[in-house]
Amino acid sequence: MTAAAHQPSAVLLLSCPDHPGIIAHLSTFLAEHHGNIVSFDQYVDHDESIFFARVEWTLDTFDIPLSGFSAAFMPIAVAHEIQYTLHDTTRRPRIAILVSKQAHCLYEILSRVESGEWPCEPALVLSNHDTLRPLAERHNLPFHHIPLDAATRDLQEPKQIELLQREHIDLVILARYMQILSPEFIRAFPMRIINIHPSFLPAFAGARPYKAAHDRGVKIIGATAHYATENLDEGPIIEQDVVRVSHRGTVADWTRLGADLEKIVLARAVRHHLLHHILIHGRRTIVFGS
Amino acid sequence: MTAAAHQPSAVLLLSCPDHPGIIAHLSTFLAEHHGNIVSFDQYVDHDESIFFARVEWTLDTFDIPLSGFSAAFMPIAVAHEIQYTLHDTTRRPRIAILVSKQAHCLYEILSRVESGEWPCEPALVLSNHDTLRPLAERHNLPFHHIPLDAATRDLQEPKQIELLQREHIDLVILARYMQILSPEFIRAFPMRIINIHPSFLPAFAGARPYKAAHDRGVKIIGATAHYATENLDEGPIIEQDVVRVSHRGTVADWTRLGADLEKIVLARAVRHHLLHHILIHGRRTIVFGS
Amino acid sequence: MTAAAHQPSAVLLLSCPDHPGIIAHLSTFLAEHHGNIVSFDQYVDHDESIFFARVEWTLDTFDIPLSGFSAAFMPIAVAHEIQYTLHDTTRRPRIAILVSKQAHCLYEILSRVESGEWPCEPALVLSNHDTLRPLAERHNLPFHHIPLDAATRDLQEPKQIELLQREHIDLVILARYMQILSPEFIRAFPMRIINIHPSFLPAFAGARPYKAAHDRGVKIIGATAHYATENLDEGPIIEQDVVRVSHRGTVADWTRLGADLEKIVLARAVRHHLLHHILIHGRRTIVFGS
Amino acid sequence: MTAAAHQPSAVLLLSCPDHPGIIAHLSTFLAEHHGNIVSFDQYVDHDESIFFARVEWTLDTFDIPLSGFSAAFMPIAVAHEIQYTLHDTTRRPRIAILVSKQAHCLYEILSRVESGEWPCEPALVLSNHDTLRPLAERHNLPFHHIPLDAATRDLQEPKQIELLQREHIDLVILARYMQILSPEFIRAFPMRIINIHPSFLPAFAGARPYKAAHDRGVKIIGATAHYATENLDEGPIIEQDVVRVSHRGTVADWTRLGADLEKIVLARAVRHHLLHHILIHGRRTIVFGS
Repeated sequence: MTAAAHQPSAVLLLSCPDHPGIIAHLSTFLAEHHGNIVSFDQYVDHDESIFFARVEWTLDTFDIPLSGFSAAFMPIAVAHEIQYTLHDTTRRPRIAILVSKQAHCLYEILSRVESGEWPCEPALVLSNHDTLRPLAERHNLPFHHIPLDAATRDLQEPKQIELLQREHIDLVILARYMQILSPEFIRAFPMRIINIHPSFLPAFAGARPYKAAHDRGVKIIGATAHYATENLDEGPIIEQDVVRVSHRGTVADWTRLGADLEKIVLARAVRHHLLHHILIHGRRTIVFGS
Repeated sequence: MTAAAHQPSAVLLLSCPDHPGIIAHLSTFLAEHHGNIVSFDQYVDHDESIFFARVEWTLDTFDIPLSGFSAAFMPIAVAHEIQYTLHDTTRRPRIAILVSKQAHCLYEILSRVESGEWPCEPALVLSNHDTLRPLAERHNLPFHHIPLDAATRDLQEPKQIELLQREHIDLVILARYMQILSPEFIRAFPMRIINIHPSFLPAFAGARPYKAAHDRGVKIIGATAHYATENLDEGPIIEQDVVRVSHRGTVADWTRLGADLEKIVLARAVRHHLLHHILIHGRRTIVFGS
Repeated sequence: MTAAAHQPSAVLLLSCPDHPGIIAHLSTFLAEHHGNIVSFDQYVDHDESIFFARVEWTLDTFDIPLSGFSAAFMPIAVAHEIQYTLHDTTRRPRIAILVSKQAHCLYEILSRVESGEWPCEPALVLSNHDTLRPLAERHNLPFHHIPLDAATRDLQEPKQIELLQREHIDLVILARYMQILSPEFIRAFPMRIINIHPSFLPAFAGARPYKAAHDRGVKIIGATAHYATENLDEGPIIEQDVVRVSHRGTVADWTRLGADLEKIVLARAVRHHLLHHILIHGRRTIVFGS
Repeated sequence: MTAAAHQPSAVLLLSCPDHPGIIAHLSTFLAEHHGNIVSFDQYVDHDESIFFARVEWTLDTFDIPLSGFSAAFMPIAVAHEIQYTLHDTTRRPRIAILVSKQAHCLYEILSRVESGEWPCEPALVLSNHDTLRPLAERHNLPFHHIPLDAATRDLQEPKQIELLQREHIDLVILARYMQILSPEFIRAFPMRIINIHPSFLPAFAGARPYKAAHDRGVKIIGATAHYATENLDEGPIIEQDVVRVSHRGTVADWTRLGADLEKIVLARAVRHHLLHHILIHGRRTIVFGS
C-alpha cells in the first residue's frame, strides 16, 4: 500500500466496458515493458458492466517514458474503449486550503503537511476573513485574504479563481469554508475540490447540520468528505465517519464531537485523492486501497 | 443496571420544569418511605429548562403499595408540576410482533424471547402474509394471518387493531412489517409501536433505502429504531447503528449487511422500552441506561 | 462480489514468490481458456516478497473441466512456484456445528442456514450436552449428544472425530463450544475449524474473558473469530468486532452485549470461509472481499 | 453537560458504602444551602456495595464559601463514610506536556489549548529531545529540554520532577513520551499523569505495539488513554477507541492510522480529567458524562 512512497511509480486509473481479457491485455502490456506491478485493484460494476481498475507499477525498469505512455498504450485503450488518467507519483500536487474562521481543520491539515505525511506541495491558504492568518503564517504558508460573503461573491470570486489558477493549484480543500461556490468556480476545478460537510450526508445537508441533527434527536452524528459539484452537498462522497451521541449532549457538545470527525474524515479523503486512489462513477466514488 | 432484574422494583419516569430542590424532594420522599434507590438518572434540558429523571427503587421495604403511590406522591407532583409514569418491573408487558415476509428480525426476537433475555410476555405474531407461520408456530406462538396490502388496508386494519386490543398488547414491534400504518392504528397504541427502518434516518426515509443509499454512493449505511408516529419514519428515534460499506458491495450485499444491523438495533430498542429506560421529549428520546 | 452466486464459477486462491509478470501469466491463461474473470484480488506482502491472489471466473465458457485444471495449470504453477487451492462454487461444503449449552450462536447459524444465506450443506449439530437438542431438531438437523468434559475428553473425542469424518464434514464451527480441542482433533481438520472467542484477542484469551475485561476496566469489548490451532486462542484471526461499554455495566451486561457481537462476528467469518475469501499466511489471514 | 462552562460551579466527586438515603441527604444538603444542581450522576457497584456520584451545582446562590465546604459537609461525610474531592470549576488546572520526538499528539494538544476548548492553563512542554521545541515556542509555550534516556534516567528525572513541582503542575500529559517513568515520578503525581498507549490494552502492552499487532494479524487496532501507575501500561483506563485495519496495511500504515486514534483518544481523556468527570475505583475508572 505504501510501496509507492519509496520509489518512483506510475498510477493508472481506468474504466471501460467489461469484456473478457482486459486484465490479461493490461498486465501483459506492463509486463512486456518491464513495469513491475506494485498493486492491482479491480472492480466490476456488474449492473452496468463497467470495469474499473487502479494499477501502480515501478518506473525504474519500465521502458516507456511517461511522456510516451499515451502513444504506446493507445492500441489497448482503443480496443477496449478505455478511459484513463495517468499519474506520476513523484509529482507533488499543489494544494490550496480555503477557510473561513473555524480553525480545527486548518490545524489538522497544517500539521499533516508539516509532518510530510502527504505527498503534496502546500501553496497557499485563502480565506474570506483575516482570522486565521497567524496560523498560516506560523507555518510559512502564504495567506490570502479576499473578503467575500453572499452579497459580494460575484465580485470577489473571480479574484479567488484567478489566484488559484495563477498558482497552478491542483487540489482545492474546503476546510470549513463557509461560503457556497458558484458554478463557475466548480467548473474551473472539476473533481478537484474536496469539501467537508459536518453531517452524515444525505442527512442534514445545508446550513446548521448539528442543530438540525439535535432537533431530530439522532443517536449518531457524522461527517462527509465529498467532491464539490454544482449541486450543494450532492457531489460524489469520498469518505464518511460517525460518532455516537446521546440526549445529554447539547448542540455545542455535538459540534465539538463533530469537529473531531470533520478533520479526520477530511484528512482521509485528501490522502486518497493525493495517492490517486479514487475513480468517479456518476455520483459514486470507487476508492481503492481504502 | 440489572439489579432490578433480581428483585421487585418500581421505575418512575418523570419530567417537570427545572427548579432547585427537585432531586432533594424526590429522594427524600423515597427515603422516608424506605424505598432503596437502585439507580437514579437525571438530565436537564438547559435550553428549555426541563428536568427529566428515571428513578428505580426496590419494593421489599417500600411502605407504600404501588396502587397507593399516586395519592402519596401527589403533593410533590403538584408542587413541581411533575408528569410521570410508574412501572412495576415484575409486570411483564405483552408484546405483538408484526411481520411481512422477511424473517431475520423475527428470528432475532424469537430467540431473545425464548432465551428469557427480555422481561416480556410474547402474545402473538401478526402478519399480512402466511409466509412466516412455521417460524412462529415452532416457538408455540399464535400466528395470525390477516391479509392486507395498500388497497385493502382500510378494510383489514380494524381487524388487526381489534386483535391487538383484545389481546391486551402493551408493545407492538414492527419487525420489517412492510405496510404503512394508518393514523388510527398509531393512535390506538401511542408511543407503544416500535419500528425498525433500514437506513440511518433521516437519510433515506421511505421505500427501498438500500437502493437509494447505493445510488447516492454513501460509505456507511445504518438502521434506525423509532416509535411509529403519524408521520412516516419521523417518530422519536430510540437507537441507531451503522456499518461501513464500500463500492465493491452491490445493493444485495448492502441489504445483507444491513439486515444484521436491523435486527440488533431493533432488539436494543425493544429492550430499552421493556426496561423503562425511555422518556419522550418532543421528537427526541431520552434513553437512560444506554 | 455476489456475481458468483448466480452462475457456476471457480475460485483460485494462490500464493507464490513475488515476481514481475505473474498477473499477466495468470490472466492470460484464463483468457486463453475463455474463463471470464468475475473478480480479481491481489495483495503483495512487500516485506516478505510474497504474492497472494484470489481469482474468480465463470465456468460456462471456460474450456477446461475443473478436473483437468491441475494439469493445464501446471506449467504456470511450476514456473512461478505457485501454491494454490481451487474451489468449485457450486459445491456446497458440509458444516458441523459444535455447541455446549449457550444458544445464541446456534440460533444465529440456524437462521442463516435456513434462510439460504450461506452456500453450505448443514450436516449436524454436535454437543457435549443435550441442552440444545430441541433447537437443532426443530430445524430438522441431526443432533448428536456425545457427553464430554475435561476428564473424559481423551475417551470421547475420538467418537466426535469419527462422526465428523464419517459425515464428510468440510467445516467445523465452534459455536460457543466450551471445551478445548486436543491436537489430534485440530490436526484432523486443519484450518477447517472456526472458533468464536468472546474477547478482542489477544486480550483476554482463555476462560471468563468478560469477567477479566470487567476487572481490568476496559472501555470497549470485542469478539474474535479465528481458525483453531493447537495453541489455544492463537490461531489466525479471520474477523473481529467491538462494542463500547461503560462502568455502569455489570459482567452480566457485558456478557449480554458481547453475545450480540459473538454471533455476528462468527457469522461473518463463516461466510468468508464458505465463499473462499481467505488465504492463510503464517499467523495472519488475508481476507479478500472484506 | 456544558452548563458549568457558563457560570461558576462546584463539582463534588464522592464514594461511600451504599446505604439507603445517601442521595436524599446529599441533595437536601445542597438544597438547604441554595446550591442549584446542574447535573447529578450516580452509580452503584452492586457487587461491592459502593456508591459513587458526581454532583455539580452553581455557586451564585450557594451560601457556603468553598473554603468552608469541608466543615459544613463534615456531618454528612462522617455519617455515610464519604470520601470525596471538591473542585472549583473556575480554577484552571496547570498542565505540562511531556513529549519525545513524535509530534502528532503535541499538535493536537496545542491546537485544543489555543482554541480555548479546554479549561486549563498550559504551563510548559518538557522533552528528552530538542526536536519539538519549534512547535512549542510557536505557541509561546516554554519548552524545557532535559536530555534523558534509560541510562540517564535516575540522574535526570529528579530535574523533571523538580521543574513540574516548581511550576505547580496539576496534570502531566504523556503525549507519546517514549520513556518509562520511575515509581518516584509516578508517586509525585498520583492519578495526575495521563498516558496514551498505542494499542487496545491489555493487548500489546510494552514496546512496538503496532508491529506486534501486525505480526498477530488482528483486524482492528486501538489506542488507550490511562492514568500512569507504577505498573507499566496497567493503570486505570480512561478512554479507548479502535479502527478497522486489513491485511493490505503495512506496519507503517497501521502506525499512521493509529496516530489519528492516539491523539483523539488522548484528547478525550484529558478533557474528562479537566472537567472532573472521573472517579477511580481500583483498576477501573468511572467516567461520568461520557
